[in-house]
Amino acid sequence: MRALLLSASRAGDTPYLTHALPYIDALLKSDERELLFIPYAGVTIGWDDYSAKVAEALAPLGITVTGIHSAEDPLAAVRQAKAIAVGGGNTFRLLSELYSQGLVGAVAEQVAKGLPYIGWSAGSNVAGKSIRTTNDMPIIYPPSFDALGLLPFQINPHFTDYVQPGHNGETRSERLTEFLTLNPQEQVACLPEGTVLHLDGNKLALLGDKTAYLMRFGQTDEVQAGSSLSHWL
Amino acid sequence: MRALLLSASRAGDTPYLTHALPYIDALLKSDERELLFIPYAGVTIGWDDYSAKVAEALAPLGITVTGIHSAEDPLAAVRQAKAIAVGGGNTFRLLSELYSQGLVGAVAEQVAKGLPYIGWSAGSNVAGKSIRTTNDMPIIYPPSFDALGLLPFQINPHFTDYVQPGHNGETRSERLTEFLTLNPQEQVACLPEGTVLHLDGNKLALLGDKTAYLMRFGQTDEVQAGSSLSHWL
Repeated sequence: MRALLLSASRAGDTPYLTHALPYIDALLKSDERELLFIPYAGVTIGWDDYSAKVAEALAPLGITVTGIHSAEDPLAAVRQAKAIAVGGGNTFRLLSELYSQGLVGAVAEQVAKGLPYIGWSAGSNVAGKSIRTTNDMPIIYPPSFDALGLLPFQINPHFTDYVQPGHNGETRSERLTEFLTLNPQEQVACLPEGTVLHLDGNKLALLGDKTAYLMRFGQTDEVQAGSSLSHWL
Repeated sequence: MRALLLSASRAGDTPYLTHALPYIDALLKSDERELLFIPYAGVTIGWDDYSAKVAEALAPLGITVTGIHSAEDPLAAVRQAKAIAVGGGNTFRLLSELYSQGLVGAVAEQVAKGLPYIGWSAGSNVAGKSIRTTNDMPIIYPPSFDALGLLPFQINPHFTDYVQPGHNGETRSERLTEFLTLNPQEQVACLPEGTVLHLDGNKLALLGDKTAYLMRFGQTDEVQAGSSLSHWL
């Protein structure tokens, strides 16, 4: 399997997907630069507009982008794809649509066979075991929280432990601790904005210039940028 | 129906439930001061400890508190209760447990018959139509997102539109706009910390000293503290 899982579409105030370009350039071979894009996480942006936005961002790499919603047969589109990308937005909406289109198993199967996968935000979230560590609002009820399971752990994108002044809601770490308390056998890769997981066969590495975290029940480990994480697999 | 729905257990940095005491004192008659407490939203706090914490906070009002988890028959406990309170924590955990104990219908039915209901945070969330506007992490998959439906709209507790510096996640309003885009027939009561909804028969009012908001598809209305909201019913 080959996959790039980005915490977010932006790092700081850089333009859309700009920080991801070198990683995507390194991931995709010259005959894989026709990208099937899954815009299903988009709710307040139309799927045509969303696909056009991604096409514009990736044009400098000579990548063409086709939105899966414009395919007559989305399942066939996945099976024929050269590379696949899943964008951010609302994770519940994304997973619900993947289920209703019958694509969860097909995407996982094709990626297992070597189809390169690029995800950011919600698109990274669904690459994990389940969406139980998403930050998104549950605006629609999916038939399951189980996701693509490309990686044998949970992902928390946009990770931050910032505390809003004067606010009494839970911090992100407190929320994830609740998850691990109910599910003590699970692990969560906490990805601050600007970090990227790179999967290449049986190798996993942390790209970017920020520290990430692996949370387990009762234990949180720091991971430095550039570290090998292959032992997580 | 009589209900108090608090945004949060605290307002600013006041002690636990302190800001709620005058409202609870006004809600409960002298023969209703035996409170059945539902601590199911608690994940990292034990249910005994959680019930004891609530008991301590409400002791100044002469209210006794029994945790429903200590009842041999939780359903019978609901049917015999003089008053009921549902505390905050994780909304998915709370609703999952209400379903697995078979209590969703029973609580709604008893409140419809006049049982006073007090909720804060997750406990307010489940008083709405569904939990689709919770801020919590989906750490467990409930059999449905449908909730108690004591009120004919959605609730968003801990409402804030604060934007964390340098972070690219959605604001609360953006999340709720996503919800309303997918569900344009719904309405969301956005409750900043310190605000309280007070339901008394066919009267609904906003208590506290803060402005709240009603979000509909394409429209957000401000609501001043002390306003009548009976037209929302």
